[in-house]
Amino acid sequence: MMEQPRTPMPGAELLAQFAAIVGPANALTAPHDQAPYLREWRDHYVGRTPVVLRPSTVAEVSAIMALAHASGTAVVPQSGNTGLVGGQIPFEHGHEVLLNLSRLDRIRAVDASGDTMTVEAGVTLAAVQQAAATAGRLFPLSLASEGSCRIGGVLGTNAGGVGVLAYGNARDLTLGLEVVLADGRMWDGLTALRKDNTGYDLRHLFVGSEGTLGIITAAVLKLFARPTELATAFVGLPSLEAARDLFRHARASCGPALTAFEILPRLGIDFVTRHMPNCRDPLTSSHPWYALVEVSGFAAGTSERLETMLADAMEQGFVADAAVAGSLAQTQAFWALRENMSESQKFEGGSLKHDVSVPIDRIPELVRRTAVLVEQIMPGCRPLPFGHFGDGNIHLNISQPPGMDKATYLARWREITGPIYALVTELNGSISAEHGIGRAKREDLLLVKPPVALDMMRAVKKALDPKGILNPGRIFE
Amino acid sequence: MMEQPRTPMPGAELLAQFAAIVGPANALTAPHDQAPYLREWRDHYVGRTPVVLRPSTVAEVSAIMALAHASGTAVVPQSGNTGLVGGQIPFEHGHEVLLNLSRLDRIRAVDASGDTMTVEAGVTLAAVQQAAATAGRLFPLSLASEGSCRIGGVLGTNAGGVGVLAYGNARDLTLGLEVVLADGRMWDGLTALRKDNTGYDLRHLFVGSEGTLGIITAAVLKLFARPTELATAFVGLPSLEAARDLFRHARASCGPALTAFEILPRLGIDFVTRHMPNCRDPLTSSHPWYALVEVSGFAAGTSERLETMLADAMEQGFVADAAVAGSLAQTQAFWALRENMSESQKFEGGSLKHDVSVPIDRIPELVRRTAVLVEQIMPGCRPLPFGHFGDGNIHLNISQPPGMDKATYLARWREITGPIYALVTELNGSISAEHGIGRAKREDLLLVKPPVALDMMRAVKKALDPKGILNPGRIFE
Repeated sequence: MMEQPRTPMPGAELLAQFAAIVGPANALTAPHDQAPYLREWRDHYVGRTPVVLRPSTVAEVSAIMALAHASGTAVVPQSGNTGLVGGQIPFEHGHEVLLNLSRLDRIRAVDASGDTMTVEAGVTLAAVQQAAATAGRLFPLSLASEGSCRIGGVLGTNAGGVGVLAYGNARDLTLGLEVVLADGRMWDGLTALRKDNTGYDLRHLFVGSEGTLGIITAAVLKLFARPTELATAFVGLPSLEAARDLFRHARASCGPALTAFEILPRLGIDFVTRHMPNCRDPLTSSHPWYALVEVSGFAAGTSERLETMLADAMEQGFVADAAVAGSLAQTQAFWALRENMSESQKFEGGSLKHDVSVPIDRIPELVRRTAVLVEQIMPGCRPLPFGHFGDGNIHLNISQPPGMDKATYLARWREITGPIYALVTELNGSISAEHGIGRAKREDLLLVKPPVALDMMRAVKKALDPKGILNPGRIFE
Repeated sequence: MMEQPRTPMPGAELLAQFAAIVGPANALTAPHDQAPYLREWRDHYVGRTPVVLRPSTVAEVSAIMALAHASGTAVVPQSGNTGLVGGQIPFEHGHEVLLNLSRLDRIRAVDASGDTMTVEAGVTLAAVQQAAATAGRLFPLSLASEGSCRIGGVLGTNAGGVGVLAYGNARDLTLGLEVVLADGRMWDGLTALRKDNTGYDLRHLFVGSEGTLGIITAAVLKLFARPTELATAFVGLPSLEAARDLFRHARASCGPALTAFEILPRLGIDFVTRHMPNCRDPLTSSHPWYALVEVSGFAAGTSERLETMLADAMEQGFVADAAVAGSLAQTQAFWALRENMSESQKFEGGSLKHDVSVPIDRIPELVRRTAVLVEQIMPGCRPLPFGHFGDGNIHLNISQPPGMDKATYLARWREITGPIYALVTELNGSISAEHGIGRAKREDLLLVKPPVALDMMRAVKKALDPKGILNPGRIFE
């Protein structure tokens, strides 16, 4: 069913005014020009828009929003167009102007000694990492889409990834923001301060608000000292309980030096070794579960530290086998297994994805009960839970039963997703650990979020965007 | 001038209804009973109230706020009454009910393996630290007032302290909240999740809102692995530029193991050794500046690591002399110099306190220009800047000229504070790094905060407390 528009379709005169702000070359109306902005890579969402606007300055963003506010025009902000929940794609009714931020792509400042960096919304995550490295610093956020996702969306969705365990998610890496509000006013909150208790923390309100409260145009990000040593192990485990024990043990013996703790199931290793080139199992024996463990250090002896930790764990019985990377190539090979986990599932038919989190101690129960649940609903379907164990964040993907028609399987998603979200909620978990709500999970949010919380969110939305023109229909129904 | 009340004085019948919620023993109306709740330890603020209410359950807090909302009664939340900006003390007009949370003092749960702890607003910070230690974990927030400050106020003001460098401030240590809203509804946001992207981050809105948006009744706090080794050095420095170089060097060579970097000026060492018992200078020679540097570790060799780092720094010329603590007693003696810094200033007459922050690289300029500035305004007054160098947070205290009348000096505070705040603002700093705004800095906030930011804060305030009954007149004029 097509979403009903809440805002009027902008007329030709108004569209001409929008186009005049950015110039005709950056106001795209031809279907061919618009196409890359209107569909996301999985083709789950394909929208329509009267115009794609590509401003190159904050002043232009400001002028666009002032006009949108005055005319009641809905605006969908988009930066790298890599979001997974449809937040950055216009609705199908075609009433929304698409505001793409990729031309705001300046790195405004790198302060290596203050450990901060000021970047615009259109800079890719990879470019941020690279600029930090060039200055001898580390920007630790790291995602599968880092080559194409851009900082506006990274912050708008509070992105996570593999560095969260030690460094936090996008929110935790943000010191200051520059935001264009719904009415076009610009808020300069580009502070580089580590401590600033002067009123409400507006920064944390915008980060993770998925473009519904304002348009982030620039940010001050935190940088870190670059570890000089890195040790990585691929570990075979008898059970998920053993993974939990290993995590506890690693954390206690390494503290903040433990910078990654990812898990993979045996089925995932089967998938990647079967379908992805140059992926092979580093261990000679087979195990039900695997952990990818990384320890960072600022002094020699980091590998020895990891080895000692693993030897202790083996002695205590919760590690069955382990390989420690002896070269950069081997480290990359270990990580390739993890990074190809999602891609490899494509070769096994339909996959239903659930980006959930629970308290770490409940992960074994979550995985065990999910397997029972989905087998009852659809015999033969194959759970492939993997991901950020140390953050309690599991990508609870369910591959279709072998031989079933893919479309038939995917069409029945609600039968599987509903019970999984109910289970996650029962275990005090979250139905969206790092991807956000967007369009994909609006109905589910109503089921799991306390009405008091929803009321507060709506009140804040109304306070900051009284006309409801910023990304309407995202997060809330 | 007395603040004009914005809310009516509650009548006798209404006060009886408030009292009935908590019972007569916990509705204090006699001046003698009320006294400890109406003045803070420095006597800067002394207020009046018709009644001090001491609920012991969240349901009672909820009932109090429902009645306050229905009747339009103003409420001042208070937990440990250690705030430094008058946020927790009623105004002098006596129209505000004081809601003291110290009887909500249960530690609801400690999850050592999940590294979380659920505590009520009335638990003292010291009790939280102790409960974490008993479970073999670390709660790293540490403040001078930790024996008496309570979690409600710690979160309400986003408290800082000496552990921020490595672990963040109160906000960063909070995973979930339970909050009673202005209308009495309770929001259960007690999540223990590390990742949860389901709508706006309401937690960060309440933390640091100084009781103006809701009443925090409980929180889920983060715990950490307890370092097994601790090495502490007291370092003599030729200049503040050398302090900056040492900080950079320490961070690069120790990474997250660098857990404290505080600075003290020579005058501070003079004050503490002169006035405080058992305080002595650990170094034989005298230096313009000192740093207290702490490195934490999870393996043997932490002291050696600190020593190597300092030896390198000496060779490079930015460390003049250093003593590394050889025993726990010596570590405590080093810290006593830092902890007595504020107290010792009392013996030198009036002291004007400024809790400011700037980007770390600007600290030398801030301190140099402040010295010139205040000498011009009041010759002979003595700047004593000290504190959390690694966070950019300096307690820019100015002791009176020797021999001047104390009251005369303190009465002229505006002459000194105004120019200091202007300088801090010029350097892109904050006029309140960790103490908050409360009543003390409302007028100053108007001068330094962009109007757009103030507008957003007021809109959020109106959205969540439409009747303006929660701590009115704090943060905003």
